[in-house]
Amino acid sequence: MINTLIKNIQEKNAPIVVGLDPMMNYIPEYIQKEAFEEYGETLKGAAKAIWVYNKGIIDATYDLIPAVKPQIAMYEQFGIEGLIAFHKTCAYAKEKGLVVIGDIKRGDIGSTSTAYAVGHLGKVKVGSKAFSGFDEDFVTVNPYLGTDGVKPFVDVCKEENKGIFVLVKTSNPSSGEFQDKLVDGRPLYELVAEKVVEWGNECMGDTYSNVGCVVGATYPEMGKVLRKLMPKTYILVPGYGAQGGKAADLVHYFNEDGLGAIVNSSRGIIAAYKQEKYASFGSKNYADASRQAVVDMIADINGALGR
Amino acid sequence: MINTLIKNIQEKNAPIVVGLDPMMNYIPEYIQKEAFEEYGETLKGAAKAIWVYNKGIIDATYDLIPAVKPQIAMYEQFGIEGLIAFHKTCAYAKEKGLVVIGDIKRGDIGSTSTAYAVGHLGKVKVGSKAFSGFDEDFVTVNPYLGTDGVKPFVDVCKEENKGIFVLVKTSNPSSGEFQDKLVDGRPLYELVAEKVVEWGNECMGDTYSNVGCVVGATYPEMGKVLRKLMPKTYILVPGYGAQGGKAADLVHYFNEDGLGAIVNSSRGIIAAYKQEKYASFGSKNYADASRQAVVDMIADINGALGR
Repeated sequence: MINTLIKNIQEKNAPIVVGLDPMMNYIPEYIQKEAFEEYGETLKGAAKAIWVYNKGIIDATYDLIPAVKPQIAMYEQFGIEGLIAFHKTCAYAKEKGLVVIGDIKRGDIGSTSTAYAVGHLGKVKVGSKAFSGFDEDFVTVNPYLGTDGVKPFVDVCKEENKGIFVLVKTSNPSSGEFQDKLVDGRPLYELVAEKVVEWGNECMGDTYSNVGCVVGATYPEMGKVLRKLMPKTYILVPGYGAQGGKAADLVHYFNEDGLGAIVNSSRGIIAAYKQEKYASFGSKNYADASRQAVVDMIADINGALGR
Repeated sequence: MINTLIKNIQEKNAPIVVGLDPMMNYIPEYIQKEAFEEYGETLKGAAKAIWVYNKGIIDATYDLIPAVKPQIAMYEQFGIEGLIAFHKTCAYAKEKGLVVIGDIKRGDIGSTSTAYAVGHLGKVKVGSKAFSGFDEDFVTVNPYLGTDGVKPFVDVCKEENKGIFVLVKTSNPSSGEFQDKLVDGRPLYELVAEKVVEWGNECMGDTYSNVGCVVGATYPEMGKVLRKLMPKTYILVPGYGAQGGKAADLVHYFNEDGLGAIVNSSRGIIAAYKQEKYASFGSKNYADASRQAVVDMIADINGALGR
């Protein structure tokens, strides 16, 4: 699956991913109103609004971007109905040729991790048949439980030609509380990075591994070191834009082949119409504002990369 | 919510929790057959079988136990239909007076963690209304992202009188890969434990905090140290039985007040009828086998505790 992601990135000359993390207050009022008129102010109404909003963004941007990254928490908060909207969003994005990175940050042990992997990347057996639950292309995985937690995902990736991104260094201010702690003089996240390489060697694509990692844009010095530690590992980079990461900081997340990183923006794209810069689009044209924000983001990052 | 859990434990004299982690191969064939006759070999058929199986176990054990711990991965693998069975199981267990610990091991940052917390423990706003998504009483939380990831759960716990159990030292063989790494001479899990105490101080019940932790039964020496480090933290203990943890090992997870720990068994209870010891019940009476396994587990643990 990493081959497909790279192909998409190259064809569109866009090392970016759009985070579909819909908050209710991002969704233009007219969409909410229509959904509530149909289903009332209910979980189903909220889910309908989310789906319509997402579809608008996908329709307006799919030809420019290689991938989307729906954050499942934003759907899960609306219970079953929200998760139906998540599933529908993933399926629609795939229909449009996009790679879907499910930002699920799951992680457990043994048969439990297998269950997550099967549900999100593989197929579950029911009697003599097998079904996909959510069917993303990649998911994000939390490594705190060690190899027992990650290996079952890798096994499913091998069987199904899917991929994962393992959290190494997250973009948030307190990520250092545990991740930066020094172990024999080296930060914990470097130890995690070494394991990512080990897990990834088992599941290689042509040039990069199907086991990628997450390193926040907000820690560029660490990104530079981690890039070198994991030469064949694709880095999913959150934290650009709204969280403070700048394009110039991201140069060292890439390899010399111009590959190796994919930069996420969520709020900065999907709620672009709320920024002063794109306010002239108005809420009715929120999706066009998102398209313009995508164009600008690609130019910003490619500019920093000198291409 | 920790007060309610403790009250349940005391009334039933049973510091245990039954892990509702249904694997298809645990579910007696006659239940699967009936479900497949109704819905075919589909995700809906699987979900029906899981629900019937769970209901049988809850009906047969609810008067003996304080709580259940459904492992959401085992439901999530069946997609939306599986999650409907999860929701139904949680609701039914609550109807029967049980405390529901959602074993979801979620963890993200900021508004994303808030979304998980709201979806599983609180209420999400939709227009002028508010709805519960899954409505568990407690959930398990992964601490790898630091305070930014856990604090939003604590905030929702305060508002809604709910609780969490934060992963400190998990029961699996490779849990030491990161959790045991020495930081200034002390294992990482102790640093996590100190943070658990800090987070927990903000959200106290009468004698224990609504912020508990997870420490595996398979590491009793570590359990002993962690018990002392976190005197007011309830410890959820996985790994008893099938994973190798013995009752005698668990004594030091408890405080002198006889409280402070709740021991989970999943497979050992819900698939008891598959063990030689309970085979005479037969698959038709799988729930009675589970009841007997609960009686035996309570006796085993209370025996080790000398009461």
